Amino acid sequence: MATLGDIGVSAAINLLTAFIFLLAFAILRLQPFNDRVYFSKWYLKGLRSSPTQAGAFVRKFVNLDYRSYLRFLNWIPESLKMPELELIDHAGLDSAVYLRIYLLGLKIFVPITFLAWSILVPVNWTNSTLDNVKLTNVTSSDIDKLSISNVPLGSNRFWTHIVLAYAFTFWTCYVLLKEYETVAFMRLHFISSEKRRPDQFTVLVRNVPPDPDESVSESVEHFFLVNHRDNYLTHQVVYNANKLAKLVKKMRRMQNWLDYYQLKYSRNSSRSPMIKIGFLGCWGERVDAIDHYTSKIEKLAKEIADEKARVRKDPKSIMPAAFVSFKTRWGAAVCAQTQQSRNPTLWLTEWAPEPRDVYWENLAIPYVQLTIRRLIMAVAFFFLTFFFMIPITFVQSLASIEGIEKAAPFLKPIIDRDFIKAFIQGFLPGIVLKLFLIFLPTILMIMSKFEGFNSMSSLERRVATRYYLFNLVNVFLGSIIAGTALDQLKTFLKQSANDYPKTIGVAIPMRATFFITYIMVDGWAGIAAEILMLKPLIIYHLKNFFLVKTEKDREEAMDPGSIGFNTGEPQIQLYFLLGLVYAAVTPMLIPFIIIFFGFAYVVFRHQIINVYNQEYESAAAFWPDVHGRVIAALVISQICLMGLLATKGAAQSTPFLIALPVLTLWFHSFCKARYEPAFVRYPLQEAMMKDTLDHAREPQFNLKAYLQNAYIHPIFKDDEDEDDEEFISKLENESVLVPTKRQSRRNTPAPSKISVGSSPSLPEAVVREYPEP
Amino acid sequence: MATLGDIGVSAAINLLTAFIFLLAFAILRLQPFNDRVYFSKWYLKGLRSSPTQAGAFVRKFVNLDYRSYLRFLNWIPESLKMPELELIDHAGLDSAVYLRIYLLGLKIFVPITFLAWSILVPVNWTNSTLDNVKLTNVTSSDIDKLSISNVPLGSNRFWTHIVLAYAFTFWTCYVLLKEYETVAFMRLHFISSEKRRPDQFTVLVRNVPPDPDESVSESVEHFFLVNHRDNYLTHQVVYNANKLAKLVKKMRRMQNWLDYYQLKYSRNSSRSPMIKIGFLGCWGERVDAIDHYTSKIEKLAKEIADEKARVRKDPKSIMPAAFVSFKTRWGAAVCAQTQQSRNPTLWLTEWAPEPRDVYWENLAIPYVQLTIRRLIMAVAFFFLTFFFMIPITFVQSLASIEGIEKAAPFLKPIIDRDFIKAFIQGFLPGIVLKLFLIFLPTILMIMSKFEGFNSMSSLERRVATRYYLFNLVNVFLGSIIAGTALDQLKTFLKQSANDYPKTIGVAIPMRATFFITYIMVDGWAGIAAEILMLKPLIIYHLKNFFLVKTEKDREEAMDPGSIGFNTGEPQIQLYFLLGLVYAAVTPMLIPFIIIFFGFAYVVFRHQIINVYNQEYESAAAFWPDVHGRVIAALVISQICLMGLLATKGAAQSTPFLIALPVLTLWFHSFCKARYEPAFVRYPLQEAMMKDTLDHAREPQFNLKAYLQNAYIHPIFKDDEDEDDEEFISKLENESVLVPTKRQSRRNTPAPSKISVGSSPSLPEAVVREYPEP
Repeated sequence: MATLGDIGVSAAINLLTAFIFLLAFAILRLQPFNDRVYFSKWYLKGLRSSPTQAGAFVRKFVNLDYRSYLRFLNWIPESLKMPELELIDHAGLDSAVYLRIYLLGLKIFVPITFLAWSILVPVNWTNSTLDNVKLTNVTSSDIDKLSISNVPLGSNRFWTHIVLAYAFTFWTCYVLLKEYETVAFMRLHFISSEKRRPDQFTVLVRNVPPDPDESVSESVEHFFLVNHRDNYLTHQVVYNANKLAKLVKKMRRMQNWLDYYQLKYSRNSSRSPMIKIGFLGCWGERVDAIDHYTSKIEKLAKEIADEKARVRKDPKSIMPAAFVSFKTRWGAAVCAQTQQSRNPTLWLTEWAPEPRDVYWENLAIPYVQLTIRRLIMAVAFFFLTFFFMIPITFVQSLASIEGIEKAAPFLKPIIDRDFIKAFIQGFLPGIVLKLFLIFLPTILMIMSKFEGFNSMSSLERRVATRYYLFNLVNVFLGSIIAGTALDQLKTFLKQSANDYPKTIGVAIPMRATFFITYIMVDGWAGIAAEILMLKPLIIYHLKNFFLVKTEKDREEAMDPGSIGFNTGEPQIQLYFLLGLVYAAVTPMLIPFIIIFFGFAYVVFRHQIINVYNQEYESAAAFWPDVHGRVIAALVISQICLMGLLATKGAAQSTPFLIALPVLTLWFHSFCKARYEPAFVRYPLQEAMMKDTLDHAREPQFNLKAYLQNAYIHPIFKDDEDEDDEEFISKLENESVLVPTKRQSRRNTPAPSKISVGSSPSLPEAVVREYPEP
Repeated sequence: MATLGDIGVSAAINLLTAFIFLLAFAILRLQPFNDRVYFSKWYLKGLRSSPTQAGAFVRKFVNLDYRSYLRFLNWIPESLKMPELELIDHAGLDSAVYLRIYLLGLKIFVPITFLAWSILVPVNWTNSTLDNVKLTNVTSSDIDKLSISNVPLGSNRFWTHIVLAYAFTFWTCYVLLKEYETVAFMRLHFISSEKRRPDQFTVLVRNVPPDPDESVSESVEHFFLVNHRDNYLTHQVVYNANKLAKLVKKMRRMQNWLDYYQLKYSRNSSRSPMIKIGFLGCWGERVDAIDHYTSKIEKLAKEIADEKARVRKDPKSIMPAAFVSFKTRWGAAVCAQTQQSRNPTLWLTEWAPEPRDVYWENLAIPYVQLTIRRLIMAVAFFFLTFFFMIPITFVQSLASIEGIEKAAPFLKPIIDRDFIKAFIQGFLPGIVLKLFLIFLPTILMIMSKFEGFNSMSSLERRVATRYYLFNLVNVFLGSIIAGTALDQLKTFLKQSANDYPKTIGVAIPMRATFFITYIMVDGWAGIAAEILMLKPLIIYHLKNFFLVKTEKDREEAMDPGSIGFNTGEPQIQLYFLLGLVYAAVTPMLIPFIIIFFGFAYVVFRHQIINVYNQEYESAAAFWPDVHGRVIAALVISQICLMGLLATKGAAQSTPFLIALPVLTLWFHSFCKARYEPAFVRYPLQEAMMKDTLDHAREPQFNLKAYLQNAYIHPIFKDDEDEDDEEFISKLENESVLVPTKRQSRRNTPAPSKISVGSSPSLPEAVVREYPEP
């Protein structure tokens, strides 16, 4: 078991790593030729242009101003300076609320730390159990002296831990309640203070029943004209453009290659670049690269045009789904929340996601198939979580010396060299596992896509949930019980239900030092690596060197990405879990978590302000998940404490601890009923108020023209560049009215238009009319 | 263990009991003076009047026509004759669907029996395990030879049981699916083919926020005028008339006593009846009874009038709830299904229950209190289920000889007599337990009322759920593990999760004979006693003798009651559970269950046609619960089989059996999503269609007048009899339009008005317009 000294050394190493990362970041970000990587958000918003257009050539790449290096930690106060409202305006509500998760961690754990250190640590420290044990040759460390392990069996001092467990639970619940309230309010305020957006008026209708006499479009129009007589405005059918999208993607790749060879040719025009057109460019006929790609692109362009025409004409390419728009927000809110037809699996309505949030491929899946897909994926995820080690072990055995020699005898002479042998034996199995873990989010995303969610935000939320469960079983439980998930499963199945908490509870104080190291490596150093953005930096410079010809190309070369809710949030949740579990057991651990939360908060605030660019805006729809997982962590911590105390001869305290999870779960169900509707439904009162306001402000607004083409497949949006009369005519209205449309970049959202404090007189008057306490 | 002979004797005894009950019933029902008890439904509908108005005096009481005795089993074909549509018309959809539960039992178990007897019984029988065991002096019976116990350890024959478990599961699911579909269709058809009913247009709004400037009524009107501008019609506030209801109830009791003494006096006018007015009428001053009660009633009448005036005037007696009515069914459907205000715990809307289904006392409970009440009741129910034996054991110890002697030493000489001693020792403990079980549904009903449900139907459904759980733990598991629920809990907590199914599975074949006896006593004889209706018969004759003066009194004296969903349905579910659990284990048991289902179907069909009178109509809202519990039984049966086979050395079959509950639960979630909305929501398409039809038929209908007073507290409905100008004026419209209003009886529903086959041309045209496959 590690002593305080070991922890100190480890902390020093990790702090040093983090410091090196930060230093590298501080230097790299000041170099003008990295500017686009570290300030990409500002470029996307058009608020920053390439630096030093004039000046020495060197200055274009290297910052020679020594003063700026002195202020290399400046980015920290800078990133904290922006007030939250401006942050929402700048980066959207999703990002602002994502930051609040870190703040939530600080709010929960700072008071808990004070309480734990001022009460629990003295109570634990002033025992001598471990000193006595030491005489019998069992090693124990100073950390354990501060933990619950130092309290003797059956001591009355355990009541302190129980009382504090109550205090921690109540405090956490209180903070969670306040936070849920705040976020729900922010969401409603964000939605209501936003400018007109197409998704406020639109409902996604799925499972339109086939009709022998009418097309999907007619059938939809007919149905809504009858059943939402006063509210229906227009609708857009959904085309099955999956094949088209594939072609366009292929063409874009070809275009990249063409650019690359043209650039190569322009730099060295002595000889035109040749390529082999066989498998992977390794063999086959040699042809002129530029000619080859030009002809290929021409062919693809024709194919695309044909496919486009086919999609528009062929009634089979129209999916049984449509985006139906209403005259008022009220009408849309009504349609989204009600059941339309006698058969509840037909005419399914739900709020339309934002146009850029739609996941188009999944819109046509029929209801029965959806439920079957869910079942399959649930079973698959179960096997993935508990049995993922089986295929990995198999691959690892293949990747061993004998395995490789068997599979490919001709490699034998190479493998038998000592250096390579050592490499294979030492690293390859680890790399196989690491590769799997790196690809895990991608695997989970594919699974979620297969399940048929129809917006990017819901896909990410689903992945986050599954990733969290995977981490819970394989990282948290896996580290505590020290075995694969499969072994754990066997252990648990063979134990009595009474013993589960004991098995986990007993192991918890013993694993404290391991988790402290984990927090430092995965948390501290990980976050520092995050800010350095090594991968995007390298990719940007590669692209910049090989592909970029114009300023517009450079713009496209930088892809800042988004926060990555699907992997980021489960990681934070692991820290919530560790913090809550160890709060009453080993208070030593919590300061490490507080440092993580504080540091991560600063880093991500900087990243959100300067780098990341959200692809969609779900208005913090993920908060119920965040809340639910903190509650889960709380319940797990309570059960662990129960098990631990049961083995500590404090069994008479169990009834007091059983009340805790019951109360916590009740609190959860209360919050769920009280706040979750704000994230799922849209209150009619709000809708009506906003409609009235809108109508008073712009009575002549042509909503139909505004909504006409809001929900067309992104593939067809490209048509603006071409001269496609049919579409251009429709889109002309739109390009005037939709400020989010930017021709230079796909996936670039417009800044959210929050009109805080605007409309001073009218809304107040309306609010006063329909009071709500 | 019982042999086939023992079972035969038991069956003979129970069949004889049942036969005696049936014979008694056959004789009693033919006596004219019992006519009102055995045909009360027809009296209530006004289709039968007191028999033999003319004729000999004796004939008025005794049927002397010997021919009618010869046809004493005639009621069976008679009760089966009425077609289902007529039954729905006669007794409502609730009753008709309730009967379908028994039919569902027959549909599931008749094919299962055939399959089990033709395949399983030969497979089990042709082993000789038990013959060999017999040699080692363990007794076993012929029944066990037919059961799975006769198959040797690790035999391949267990595959038959596994395949049949699959077959049983698929058959049960198929029947359940078809039945869910049918019932959902019947419900929608019932609702849509019904005549105009107030609850179709009305939504119950709760948690109206208090407003300092406006009364509740103004606030409601304001809110809905704004937020449902085009649809709002009118509303009725809810008065807190709980105190008033109590006074009226008291007055009614006094009136009964007065009637009793007046009747006594009229029969024997020589001396006026005297009573003591002290405690329980045992001591105190002697006064003239008639004078006493007359004065009391006068006083109460004044109090009631005062209270009525107070309730109407005092703004505090208006509860923050209201029944809001809309112009169209569409408007009501929209309001019931959507969220109204930003705060989802205010302005809660839900479909209004039928006026006679409303449970008025609970309408004012605020949201936060509701969630706390649910928590308290959940904990209380847990303790009730697992710890109910503790207070009972305590009372039993009090009820022992020593306990009584201690508590009341003066009774010692009486108790010490041998006869009384034997009685106390032998019967009292049993009676205490029996009394508890008799009062259990009442206790559960009080708990549900405390939870704050606001309709009688939801209260009954909740009680049914809890009663089922109680039975599952204390009857099913209690009989198998043979111990109190508390012991079971301890057993399970100490065992590993793997062992739960084994513990139950092993015991199951051994308890088969016990359950066969249980089915015969509780099922066969119990149902036969049901038809005899002993309790209502005795009460009716007592009332008839002591209280009845006029024909109207006699009408009121008979209270047929209703089916009693809260106790009846859990009982049926126990038989589903037994049948499914034993289907693959001891096929011997299922024929007994089939006899139960068949017999009970006939008896309840007779009762529903001739006796019971439903107090409300929920349009089969209970079916999702019924479906869910059969699924639960199916899963329990699969787990038991898994445990049993694991102990039989057929562990390799476990994976095949694990798939079964997974598939069953998936099937359940599919059905839930597919059919449950039909029981919770009201599709807009249906609403719109019905609105259009109504409008076409009666364009001039005054809906506002029709709905104005549909939802007034039943206490105020009595005012019709008095001359209360304010109310009469309002009610005049209503008494013309509401055919359900009958002055002679409270709680008497009007016959449901199904217009099957009416409106031949118009609806078809509309249906054709919005087709749905």
